[in-house]
Amino acid sequence: MKHFTSIEKMSNTEVLGLIKRAQEFKQGAVWQKPRAQIFASNLFFENSTRTHQSFAIAECKLGLEVLEFNAETSSLSKGESLYDTVLTLDALGVGVCVIRHSEDHYYEQLVQSPHIHLSIVNAGDGSGQHPSQCLLDLMTIQQEFGGFDGLNVAIVGDINHSRVARSNAQMLTRLGAKVTFSGPKEWFSAEEFSSYGEHWPIDKLVGEVDVMMLLRVQHERHNAAATFSKADYHQKYGLTVPRAERMKSGAIIMHPAPVNRDVELADALVEAAQSRIVKQMQNGVFARMAILEAVLS
Amino acid sequence: MKHFTSIEKMSNTEVLGLIKRAQEFKQGAVWQKPRAQIFASNLFFENSTRTHQSFAIAECKLGLEVLEFNAETSSLSKGESLYDTVLTLDALGVGVCVIRHSEDHYYEQLVQSPHIHLSIVNAGDGSGQHPSQCLLDLMTIQQEFGGFDGLNVAIVGDINHSRVARSNAQMLTRLGAKVTFSGPKEWFSAEEFSSYGEHWPIDKLVGEVDVMMLLRVQHERHNAAATFSKADYHQKYGLTVPRAERMKSGAIIMHPAPVNRDVELADALVEAAQSRIVKQMQNGVFARMAILEAVLS
Amino acid sequence: MKHFTSIEKMSNTEVLGLIKRAQEFKQGAVWQKPRAQIFASNLFFENSTRTHQSFAIAECKLGLEVLEFNAETSSLSKGESLYDTVLTLDALGVGVCVIRHSEDHYYEQLVQSPHIHLSIVNAGDGSGQHPSQCLLDLMTIQQEFGGFDGLNVAIVGDINHSRVARSNAQMLTRLGAKVTFSGPKEWFSAEEFSSYGEHWPIDKLVGEVDVMMLLRVQHERHNAAATFSKADYHQKYGLTVPRAERMKSGAIIMHPAPVNRDVELADALVEAAQSRIVKQMQNGVFARMAILEAVLS
Repeated sequence: MKHFTSIEKMSNTEVLGLIKRAQEFKQGAVWQKPRAQIFASNLFFENSTRTHQSFAIAECKLGLEVLEFNAETSSLSKGESLYDTVLTLDALGVGVCVIRHSEDHYYEQLVQSPHIHLSIVNAGDGSGQHPSQCLLDLMTIQQEFGGFDGLNVAIVGDINHSRVARSNAQMLTRLGAKVTFSGPKEWFSAEEFSSYGEHWPIDKLVGEVDVMMLLRVQHERHNAAATFSKADYHQKYGLTVPRAERMKSGAIIMHPAPVNRDVELADALVEAAQSRIVKQMQNGVFARMAILEAVLS
Repeated sequence: MKHFTSIEKMSNTEVLGLIKRAQEFKQGAVWQKPRAQIFASNLFFENSTRTHQSFAIAECKLGLEVLEFNAETSSLSKGESLYDTVLTLDALGVGVCVIRHSEDHYYEQLVQSPHIHLSIVNAGDGSGQHPSQCLLDLMTIQQEFGGFDGLNVAIVGDINHSRVARSNAQMLTRLGAKVTFSGPKEWFSAEEFSSYGEHWPIDKLVGEVDVMMLLRVQHERHNAAATFSKADYHQKYGLTVPRAERMKSGAIIMHPAPVNRDVELADALVEAAQSRIVKQMQNGVFARMAILEAVLS
Repeated sequence: MKHFTSIEKMSNTEVLGLIKRAQEFKQGAVWQKPRAQIFASNLFFENSTRTHQSFAIAECKLGLEVLEFNAETSSLSKGESLYDTVLTLDALGVGVCVIRHSEDHYYEQLVQSPHIHLSIVNAGDGSGQHPSQCLLDLMTIQQEFGGFDGLNVAIVGDINHSRVARSNAQMLTRLGAKVTFSGPKEWFSAEEFSSYGEHWPIDKLVGEVDVMMLLRVQHERHNAAATFSKADYHQKYGLTVPRAERMKSGAIIMHPAPVNRDVELADALVEAAQSRIVKQMQNGVFARMAILEAVLS
């Protein structure tokens, strides 16, 4: 695997192999990296805390040399393109670029160029994919249930704007789980998503599912912010405390975070016993170690 | 010591123990850190050169892995709270967060949370405290005079806005020194500070003291910047060259820096023989090594 | 060599020695650095990708501890001067500051101060010099032709605003090459440059030269951006594909980058066989290793 750009193009075997390796890293496995220094450059063109920091930590744990790239103080501010920036880093000897960018499929031009030899790891592209998030979500579910076959998973919220909803829906379905969607109808494109599962009101599904996977309301991607009521959303579509009490025993709560507390999820539930949100963040470091090892080996 | 948030809550023994350890680091002592990587995350929400850089250097000298956190390009820009940011870093495996923040006592919620396990080191909170600065100030005075008993220390300038004036006044008094304040009367809250010492005009105290501890005029915290005259302040309240000539033999000049040259202190005195400003900065690295070692051990 | 601020003040022997050492680093030589940690601080006050990143990589390769300095979140934003910033870094134990700054000769005050002991490496000063770029340009030419004697080199474009045109013209002339200039007449100060070579139209020189050294149109330094036509510049002064076809066999194209594609140079020529632009970037890492080793030894 030279690049890691889209999980949807990977086989189940490849995905399950990465999860297995991530689990080994979590249990203390160490990468026998080559003696020579390997440089990793993190290019985050959109705000990020957990993806950015967990890639940096994963890089350190693998023994890579971490270079932080600040777009604002780079030559991008003089008009240089992303392509020429990555061409430059390649020439300087960088081995892997971890990139988050607002443009869908920004990576196509990079991986197709005969002049760029480094590996690209996609840390989120526009409204496209966020494959390392999908991997850590799958890892977290597998840790909990031992597998995916027959699991009921709800994906709830801002489906259309999510970078993980489609990847998760596709992968979970492929791995044998049953997916149901929920949230505002206007944030659910039936054309794109109905092949993976039905759209139900949250009150109908909350007692049925093994996994409540909530998505962040991306205020920064909506124009209707002025008219959006957080309390209203929480009551109609969110996981409130009363709804959480109706969840099955053993069912878990997931969220890619950052959580809008008391919007998608009641404040008190973020750190509750049935929440796996902290565990998702923990797993993210090991999932990213597995990804980086795979593209660098 | 799990956290380092306020020096005022520490015993004299604890403070003197840290100074002793800082002195050992200055003389070449090495921390026998555990084999596993320890991640330190620096979160500076206010501008800083020496505190920020000296924590980073102290971390490197201790063999920690240093993660720089840029608030502007983090999820804080999407509305995530400081609490959720630190919860995230904790989940990712960070061992210590060094935080400067504009909110007084920002750290209370963090150290009280049962969900956050990492150590917090306070690098300055609002108009609250700046305990590592206090520690390096005490270290510098002890190096010079061997102790604190009977020393005369003047604290001069913007007392009310200072994050070190009260800590230094309290600690110096507790350790046996005599403190006198000076500077504009309206920048001295008698209610808060008169229990530590009197307020004198600078011309009355300059010949009496062992330590002239000048404070920075924090232009960024005053609204009266338009009417403030630097030359006028210097003549009325600053340490001018003629005043410095009246200082006792062996008396020293201190300043937490950055210095407003020719405001608090004459330009020519910053690097003068009786100035310990450069030494304070040097000591800061070792004081911070002692702090970090203490919270991580 | 304590500082590296201007290549024009160095002897040919010194410059050729650095190129030789850079070549050794490229072939795998390792610096036997002292056991103690050495801290390098990168202070870039102007946007940069390749200079900044290649210094950081060079520092890592030499085993230095790399500190990134962000001017915007430093005390410079409270009004602290560059001098006091570097004085601070010196006190904290930094061994070398790599600085790019908009002020010509910013480094004079720093290298003359008896209070600053660290080494200064100039990564570009205003419209002054960019000596590490000059070094990597010379290294690239020497790799190609084995030497400089009798070579014909064209320097084409925004001569007056370039930080490398004068250094390159002077050094190439001193080393035995013949320099000719080209580009818009109003961007060529005869007073400053005519002692190094004549100014010719590009069509007259393109078939004669061994090296076509193109300079970036620095849109950010021109007020006439509104009236500037990229297509027009390309046709009149740029290296178009038809012009490149008239170049001698064995002649090479150089550019300090970032390239304005289809302005100074046709898009298709950037990665063409006769282009050494990627090689220049590669060499930059090794040239900077040689510079850093020299000032730290």
